[in-house]
Amino acid sequence: MSTTTAAGEILLKPISPEYWRVTFDIPPLNIFGPANIPQLEAIVSSLETDRLVKVVVFDSAIDGFFLTHYDFLAKPEESAKFPLGRTGLQALPDMLVRISRSPVVSIASIRGRATGVGSELALASDMRFASREKALLSQWEVGAGLVPGGGPMARLPRLIGRGRALEVLLTANDINGDLAELYGYVNRSLPDAELDDFVDGIAQRIASFDKDAIAETKRLVNIASLPPDSEIAPEWEAFIKSLGRPAAQDRIKRLMLQGFHQPGDVETHLGDYVGLLGR
Amino acid sequence: MSTTTAAGEILLKPISPEYWRVTFDIPPLNIFGPANIPQLEAIVSSLETDRLVKVVVFDSAIDGFFLTHYDFLAKPEESAKFPLGRTGLQALPDMLVRISRSPVVSIASIRGRATGVGSELALASDMRFASREKALLSQWEVGAGLVPGGGPMARLPRLIGRGRALEVLLTANDINGDLAELYGYVNRSLPDAELDDFVDGIAQRIASFDKDAIAETKRLVNIASLPPDSEIAPEWEAFIKSLGRPAAQDRIKRLMLQGFHQPGDVETHLGDYVGLLGR
Amino acid sequence: MSTTTAAGEILLKPISPEYWRVTFDIPPLNIFGPANIPQLEAIVSSLETDRLVKVVVFDSAIDGFFLTHYDFLAKPEESAKFPLGRTGLQALPDMLVRISRSPVVSIASIRGRATGVGSELALASDMRFASREKALLSQWEVGAGLVPGGGPMARLPRLIGRGRALEVLLTANDINGDLAELYGYVNRSLPDAELDDFVDGIAQRIASFDKDAIAETKRLVNIASLPPDSEIAPEWEAFIKSLGRPAAQDRIKRLMLQGFHQPGDVETHLGDYVGLLGR
Repeated sequence: MSTTTAAGEILLKPISPEYWRVTFDIPPLNIFGPANIPQLEAIVSSLETDRLVKVVVFDSAIDGFFLTHYDFLAKPEESAKFPLGRTGLQALPDMLVRISRSPVVSIASIRGRATGVGSELALASDMRFASREKALLSQWEVGAGLVPGGGPMARLPRLIGRGRALEVLLTANDINGDLAELYGYVNRSLPDAELDDFVDGIAQRIASFDKDAIAETKRLVNIASLPPDSEIAPEWEAFIKSLGRPAAQDRIKRLMLQGFHQPGDVETHLGDYVGLLGR
Repeated sequence: MSTTTAAGEILLKPISPEYWRVTFDIPPLNIFGPANIPQLEAIVSSLETDRLVKVVVFDSAIDGFFLTHYDFLAKPEESAKFPLGRTGLQALPDMLVRISRSPVVSIASIRGRATGVGSELALASDMRFASREKALLSQWEVGAGLVPGGGPMARLPRLIGRGRALEVLLTANDINGDLAELYGYVNRSLPDAELDDFVDGIAQRIASFDKDAIAETKRLVNIASLPPDSEIAPEWEAFIKSLGRPAAQDRIKRLMLQGFHQPGDVETHLGDYVGLLGR
Repeated sequence: MSTTTAAGEILLKPISPEYWRVTFDIPPLNIFGPANIPQLEAIVSSLETDRLVKVVVFDSAIDGFFLTHYDFLAKPEESAKFPLGRTGLQALPDMLVRISRSPVVSIASIRGRATGVGSELALASDMRFASREKALLSQWEVGAGLVPGGGPMARLPRLIGRGRALEVLLTANDINGDLAELYGYVNRSLPDAELDDFVDGIAQRIASFDKDAIAETKRLVNIASLPPDSEIAPEWEAFIKSLGRPAAQDRIKRLMLQGFHQPGDVETHLGDYVGLLGR
């Protein structure tokens, strides 16, 4: 089931038939690119159709990065080649919406940076647990002249309230484990040394429950809490439109000159760097 | 107004014409059964029609239990005999919905376990305050192969956000006072020694205000925050359906063999016990 | 742009073309009166039409008061003379709704009391930061027999959940910096000595970003999070109706005899005083 490409892999490892792990292993920075779209799509499809799996944990094999922004070095035609997904949405928001709607319980175990796509995947998951010391969550896009495209304007205000959502989105800054917990951006932050056992314990527990009871309970929560797809679709359109504007092109270009997409300070301290672009 | 039955009583004690206390006294565990339905219905009707009462506090006379799960030893025909309530919902969700809509302010003062019906009554109340040391909140149902039936899939995501609501519902675990406060499952948790005076102080304060101003302000909050009944009704249907499935029957039977419905470890540490049923 | 009147002024000070400060300077207590309506209206209109401004910070020049309740000493005809605003709402809720919808990012920097209109303006703003030691937020109205009129029944439950919103509104008590942060009534509370630099840093950061990316991102958050105007309008009607009732007239009269609208204990400890009116 795991797919290996030159652009890294998204590893699917069943801990048991009921409990799967999906590990982002896209060296060196877990930057999400077009090659990863069919990988994630295959996994999402499996979650939707497998008759045994009850819970999936998303984590990372890359030190310092849970999953970060989209690959801006990829050829535009590579990103544009994917057909609309089953929901009628573009490929990336389609997969995220389907993770939320899936009868399988999804848990993001966040160690390192969850920025852009990484934050959006975490927000589409059912629960989020973070390393208190090592997690950094952010929607960095506005800092680069972009509008986020994967659902956070629809999901964050429903999760953490309008005020804190606007702060996250409009300051485009890094949010550490303590603040993410205070804001409800994650369910809880845990000492880094405890995170893996804690998440594993929750996953094992849910995996021991009845699949129908899980699925029906989640389905009813979905009715009460999921944004309609009609709020998700315009975000992708706004993202694409913003990407074509000179403000974004100029900022991304300058970030590239500073070391964006390479291991180093820009990727590690992205919140700081986007804060300096317009000064 | 208080009704005594073999199945314990729900005591209605007016502290003043404006401020009532409703105390769950169903020994030995505050398990809510069919005999308690007409007791609570009479109280809810009084809250709706009394011209003076402004605030009601729900609390418990039973050490260790605020109010817990439904009585699974009751004969099914005893539970099925009640007609639909005034809202057109089944008897239990009908009463909970009417507490939320009532012009009277309802406060759950939670000391001990608030599980299942107990959590659902707390969630239907306008405010919840908990003993930091002695409160345990939970929706245990999924752990027993059941779907909760009294509204928590509609109410919890609106109160604490989708992620934390899914954690509470799908891990089916006990939530203590500190975590309940962090999550917003309760308004605040207080040192046990301060809880009673604190809640009494809030109730006395509200009781001193103008009934029309209270009722009109609450009515406008209701418009902004109450789930529609159309989200409440399917929960009860899902609960009944889940109750008939082998997964639930098997788990409840095994819990019974371990001491469910009796004073002791299973009822006191219900979160732990449901976590072991499927392993 | 700043307007000076006998009733104090609301100072508009551009820190830069992209970053404006709006300072409430209505001695001695920052009581908001009819003379301040056209002042604030002019500022809101400027925020809507200026082509450069990206962020505005609301703060206070008055020690101990961010912005407090409406002026009950003003002649009723002075308050009633304003035409409906552009949204079709009454003048005050019209301005608040327009602040929320504006493409400009609004930040309330709360030091001192934010009660009534002050809390409502903070809630209409995009973000709220508070002095941990010196901020007091409240909706005091129910304590005076009134129904709040500027949107808090629509905005507070969406921001902090139904239970905590009902507590704020129905206890009508003062909420300090720590509790406001726990409840999410403000984004964060900061040590008083750090508040100004912190807010300035956020404002400078946002001011350095692309105006289109900011506006489009906020527009999409608005879709997910703003109450419809149809929920705002009834609040003003309920406020006006409550103001005419004997309960409110009597309570306001007694507050006046105790020192309401004058520097001193009643205004400084308003939560305590309304709690004693009905005892």
